Order: sequence, then structure tokens, then C-alpha cells
Amino acid sequence: MTERLSLRARSLDDADALAPWRERFIVPDGVIYLDGNSLGCLPRATPQRMEQVIRGEWGAGLIRSWNSADWVDLPARLGAKIAPLIGAQPQEVIACDSTSVNLFKLIAAALDMQRDRGNGARKVVLSEPGNFPTDLYMIEGLERQRLARRRLASRDSLLSALDDDVALLLLTHAHYKTGELFDMGELTRAAHEAGALVLWDLSHSGGALPVHLNHCVADGEGADFAVGCGYKYFNGGPGAPAYAFVAERHLAALRQPLTGWFGHAEPFAFSDDYTAARGIEQLQCGTPPVLGLAALEVGVDLIAEMGVARLYGKSQALSEFFCQCLGECGVALELVSPSDPHRRGSQLSYRHEHAYAICQALIARGVIGDFRDPDILRFGFAPAYLRFADIARAVGHLAEVMRTGEWQRSEFHRRAAVT
Amino acid sequence: MTERLSLRARSLDDADALAPWRERFIVPDGVIYLDGNSLGCLPRATPQRMEQVIRGEWGAGLIRSWNSADWVDLPARLGAKIAPLIGAQPQEVIACDSTSVNLFKLIAAALDMQRDRGNGARKVVLSEPGNFPTDLYMIEGLERQRLARRRLASRDSLLSALDDDVALLLLTHAHYKTGELFDMGELTRAAHEAGALVLWDLSHSGGALPVHLNHCVADGEGADFAVGCGYKYFNGGPGAPAYAFVAERHLAALRQPLTGWFGHAEPFAFSDDYTAARGIEQLQCGTPPVLGLAALEVGVDLIAEMGVARLYGKSQALSEFFCQCLGECGVALELVSPSDPHRRGSQLSYRHEHAYAICQALIARGVIGDFRDPDILRFGFAPAYLRFADIARAVGHLAEVMRTGEWQRSEFHRRAAVT
Repeated sequence: MTERLSLRARSLDDADALAPWRERFIVPDGVIYLDGNSLGCLPRATPQRMEQVIRGEWGAGLIRSWNSADWVDLPARLGAKIAPLIGAQPQEVIACDSTSVNLFKLIAAALDMQRDRGNGARKVVLSEPGNFPTDLYMIEGLERQRLARRRLASRDSLLSALDDDVALLLLTHAHYKTGELFDMGELTRAAHEAGALVLWDLSHSGGALPVHLNHCVADGEGADFAVGCGYKYFNGGPGAPAYAFVAERHLAALRQPLTGWFGHAEPFAFSDDYTAARGIEQLQCGTPPVLGLAALEVGVDLIAEMGVARLYGKSQALSEFFCQCLGECGVALELVSPSDPHRRGSQLSYRHEHAYAICQALIARGVIGDFRDPDILRFGFAPAYLRFADIARAVGHLAEVMRTGEWQRSEFHRRAAVT
Repeated sequence: MTERLSLRARSLDDADALAPWRERFIVPDGVIYLDGNSLGCLPRATPQRMEQVIRGEWGAGLIRSWNSADWVDLPARLGAKIAPLIGAQPQEVIACDSTSVNLFKLIAAALDMQRDRGNGARKVVLSEPGNFPTDLYMIEGLERQRLARRRLASRDSLLSALDDDVALLLLTHAHYKTGELFDMGELTRAAHEAGALVLWDLSHSGGALPVHLNHCVADGEGADFAVGCGYKYFNGGPGAPAYAFVAERHLAALRQPLTGWFGHAEPFAFSDDYTAARGIEQLQCGTPPVLGLAALEVGVDLIAEMGVARLYGKSQALSEFFCQCLGECGVALELVSPSDPHRRGSQLSYRHEHAYAICQALIARGVIGDFRDPDILRFGFAPAYLRFADIARAVGHLAEVMRTGEWQRSEFHRRAAVT
């Protein structure tokens, strides 16, 4: 790393209004963490909050805490906190289950809604090849039940694939591999014009950049449905609960197939027959996972305090600085993310035949990015706890790994269970 | 409470081989907890284990812990620990999602299996009215998709309702309200003879009494499917992950509709097309909820150490002693649980017009049982942390509440959100 980059990093950190927030997270010594888009860092307040939930609410409060600690409303209360961060109203979002399970609920609900509107012949769920696998897989489960037909069309042919058979357009706002952003407004409008509904997966954009679900179309209806992940930019912990959004105009007609007791209008009436709750609560299925939700709440509160617009501004500055550093250090890697920072989320991805080994060599040096099969090296810029100095140092390590051919060592080629 | 009962309780406690285990749980001072069948107590080891998972594995290990802390295998590893407690083989059980979500997967899988066998006309899922609501509701979600038809038949007419239309018999082994046990062997055999599959909900029996899923039928095939709850007798914490069982003979043909990436044969190959994992791992859907699973593991380990046969023996002794105490104290309540302890799980339930208010009056005295709409007062006997002396004292309080009419105070009639 050059002296110049080091100085530049210091001056950027000095000017960074978000710099003090790093102290609100526990970042391990000796680690530069460029993987907050896979699993966010631990907020400093989380262990204490969990101790309180575990010893106080569970241990001492026991069953009474469903009322006294208001566990029963935690999914909706947390949803209401996430809502403004994704351009939704509080009553349109709930935290529950996993992203995958929420995808199932909402894909099925969209198909059901089309049937109710007399569009039962529309069975196609349209997405793009290379979308995050679980999004594509969840369509397949419904396909096997003959409830859906999956259609994949590349980015440049999506609009022409939006024909009369399409019930739902299902896309990930920021691509998990490349970070490329879809124009949410353009696609939402096109889908609506074609008579389709839209479901946005916000896993790589929620908490990372401003999302405007309700107002993405200037003079038309906004997004219909959305899901998102709790363990990436929201720092909710490994396998944290996910969240789901349904536009208010759809809530009354909403019917989702995972009709569990917590989605019932009166769960504690214990009736034999299911009557869906009127609001977003209907999206709940089983008993809420209180420990996971409590941890997620800490992370969401932090992101809300920092503000997604500020966070996105800093992450764009971080990624641009990463590119500058690469240039100065003479590292030439094939960028697969958009070079325009406004067209990507909070990450940069590069293609290299030996991406896996390079990633492992970096991890051995304490620079944690990640690898995505088959040949993608992915660096995430979670701005809540990353410094410009970290970027400069990370690129210094990357330059060394490439210059020395360190990644060629056999130990870096052994595949782990999770890559 | 009479002196005699007090002495009798002391001698029972002195002779109780499980008595020292109470120290392994945190039971709040001043509380007699007769609701471990709703939310189990906090194991003493859980807070420290959670601190380690949160600070060590998440905070310091970050994304690396999917491999280094073996998070990726936690659902199957924990399933393998639950397996022997419910009469299953290690490769037949997995911990994941909620009981409700697992019900959906397995009901749909059973219907799918019947179609594959050429029995597509069999669409009826048979259960009993008054089964735990979520079990009944989850059938309704599939009914709306025209994949299932729900049929409810009372206990004494279940066998005759098992006709050629029945694809699946879905029953709860120990009834949530009354604790009455089904004869798992008799019903499993009858279902199989009628060409139906069987799914047992073990929420109120797993961890409470010996369950023999694989060997419940002396000379025939055992249960096909089962689900169960992590937060009751397994002490996994509020909304803990649930577990699911599929008999080994069905694993190869199993197809469940929640085809998320963690159920894929190679999740980290990130392919566009879903290929189900070969084993029980296929039942996974989204990313495993690590915090919830880690807490559940502590509870399961404890129950495994104590042994379900010993636990059930003690819980029967506790509930029999409860009945004796009621008699001695002259409290006459209408028992709705079977009077034969071998025909019930670890609970006793009574019907009373003012069950809600009586329950509240007891809670105010530190005796926590629960109320089930409309008129059931339910006392659970979680033998891992209950003493015979607690039972004697609890009945003393109940006798006082009934004798004085204390429950008539208006404050005990105000309904909380969760009853």
C-alpha cells in the first residue's frame, strides 16, 4: 500500500460522519471484514440485550412474557421499524420466518390473487437466470404442485418476456453476485402494465441503500410484495428471521398458504377453523422465534439511527476508494459489478479463475471477503463498521496475494463445506 | 395444605433420583411453574452457551463459523440428538423452522407421495376436531390450493373415517388441552391398513414421555412422519425451532414443497435448478436460525441426559400426587384428562366456567398454570425441575383460591392479549 493511499484513507476517515458508529459494533482484532453482505457484524449492544431476553424475559418472566414483554407483537413491531427503511408503511411489514419461507408465502399469494381476479390462466412466475438460488427454487416447489410455471429470462429480455401468461415478476433488487441494481420503478411499472404483480427480494439492498417500495413509480402503484434478509445489512445474527412486505392495497385480499395459528385473526380463541388476521399479521405462521427477533431488533435499531441514505453514501465512497486503491496498486481484476456506483449495491465483485484460492489466501491474512461459485470474488462494503483505512489495507493484502502468487499454495485450494 | 401432605411431599422428594437436576434450571424465586408444557424453563447452561455463540462464534468467528463452528450441520446434528428420544434413527430427524411450517412440508409431502403411488384421488387429510389449531389450519392452506381436503372425525369415529379417500392421518400424540394419549401403534396400523400415511404431532409428548415412532407397531411399519416443538419439554426458549421426522423408507421418494436453498443437494453450487438433498436435510428451507438452534441444543442435551423414561415416571408420580392433594384439600374440580396416568401425557386439565379467572388468581400467587379457551385450567408437570413440595404448595394455593372465592376479583377477569 502506498503512503499516499494511507494518507488519503486517513483524511476520508477523519471526514466520515459515520466513523463513530464503528464503536457500536464488535469487529474482531486483526480482521478486515468485507463480508457484511453475507453475515453482518455483531452490534455491541446485542450480547447484553440477549442476556436480558434470556435471563430476564425467558428465565424470570417465563410464559408471562408473551404479554409483559410484549413478545406477541414483536414480529409486527419490528416490521414497523424496518418499514421506513424500505419505503413502506409500518402496517405493511412484518418480521417472521426465513426469506425462503416468505418467498413461498408471497409467490403463492400472488398466484392466488391472480386467480381471484379471474386471471387463473396466468401461472408464470418470471425471474432471471442467476438470481439468488432460493428465489428460483421456491418457484419450483410450487411448480411441482402445478400451481406455478417458472420462466427465466435474461436481464435484457425481461421486458419482452412479460406477456399475458405472467402472474408475477420476481427479482432481486441488488444482485447477490454482482451487486447490479434493477431499476425498481421501471420494472414495477412494466410488470403492472403487463397485468403482472411484482415481488422484490431486498436481501442485498434492505438496510444498505434507500429503497422506495411504495413510491418507486412516480405516477403509479408501487411494488406489490417484497421480502428481505435479517442477517446481512441488518446485523441480526446467523440465520436471523427475515421480513416480508405486502402493499396496503392488497392486505384485505391477501391469502397466503402457510395458514398457521399465529396468522389467525384470534390465535388464542383456539377455534378449529382458520380465519386470517386482517393485516400483515396474517403472514405469520408458527410461534415467533423470540430470541432471533430480539437480536434482529438491535441491528435494525442501529441501521435506523444511522439512516440508509447516509450508509449508502458511505458504502459508495468505500467501494470507489477500493477501485482507486486497486488502480494505484496495479491490481488488474475483471470487474463484474457495474462501474457506475449508482447502478450497484454495497459490493464489488471480480471474476477470476482462481477466485476461491485467492479468497482463502486473503482470509488467512485476516481480510474476509467471499467466494461465489464458480469464479467470483466478492467484497462487501458494510459502511456501518468499515473504515477507509480498512479498504486501503485490504487492497494492500490483495496486491501482495496477487503479486507473490501466494494463493497458489495447496492449502488455499481445499474446499470447505460452506464456501 | 395439611401437615401430612407436606411430609409426604418431603419423603417423595428425598427419594426422587431426578431431584438434583432441578439445579440445572433457573426457576424464579416465588414461582411454582406448572406451565413447562407451554414454555419450558431456562436451563442454567443456556445463557453461557448463548454468550459463547453470540460473542465467540458470531462476533469473533463471523462468516467463518459456518465451517469452524459447524453451523452448517447444526440442524441435522441436533435432529440426531432428538431422534433417540422419539424412537427414531439419527438420520431421520432434523431441527428446522416452526412446527407449523414443518406440518405444511410433511402434509404436502404425504399427498405428493400418494400421487406418486398412483393414489392421486386420495386427498383427504383426516384429523380430529379440537386438535391443536395450527395442525388443522395448515391443512386448510393446502385445501385452498385444492391439494387437500380436510376431514375431522371425533376420536371414537376415527377408525371408521379411514376410508379410501384418506391420504394422511394427522394426529397429536398427547392432546394439548386434555393430555389424552392416542395409542400410536393402533392408529398407525389402522391407517396403514387403510392405505393412508400417518403424521404424528409430538409437541406435547416429545421430551415428556417415551415415543416409539419406528417401533410403535409390533409387527408392521412404524410412523411415516412426525413433527414436534422445541420450546415445551425440550426447553429451547420462546419460539425455538421445531423438529421433523421422516421414516427412512420414505427419504428417497420424499418431495416437500418448501424447496429452499438449504434443502438443496449442493447449496453452495448456486445452480439455477433445485435438486433435493438425498437425506433428511431436504426438509430444510432457508438459512438455519443458529441462535435458536444453539439454545435448543442445550435443552435437548439435558433431556437426553435425564432420559425420557425416568422423566415420564416422575411426571406421572407428580400428577398422581397432585390428584391426591386435591382430594385431601377437598377441592372438587371436573377432570377432563384421563384419570389413568398411563393414558395421559405430563399434564392434568380441569373444566371450570371461570377457568380464566382462577388461572389469573393462581398466577398472582406465583402458581403459573395456564388457561385454554373457553373453560380449561391446565397444569403441566415438567419433571425436570418440579418438586413434589411444589405440587403440595400449588394445591394449597388452589384450595385457598377456591375456598375464598378470590378468583372473583375483577382484576382476574381482564383478558390479556395472550391467554
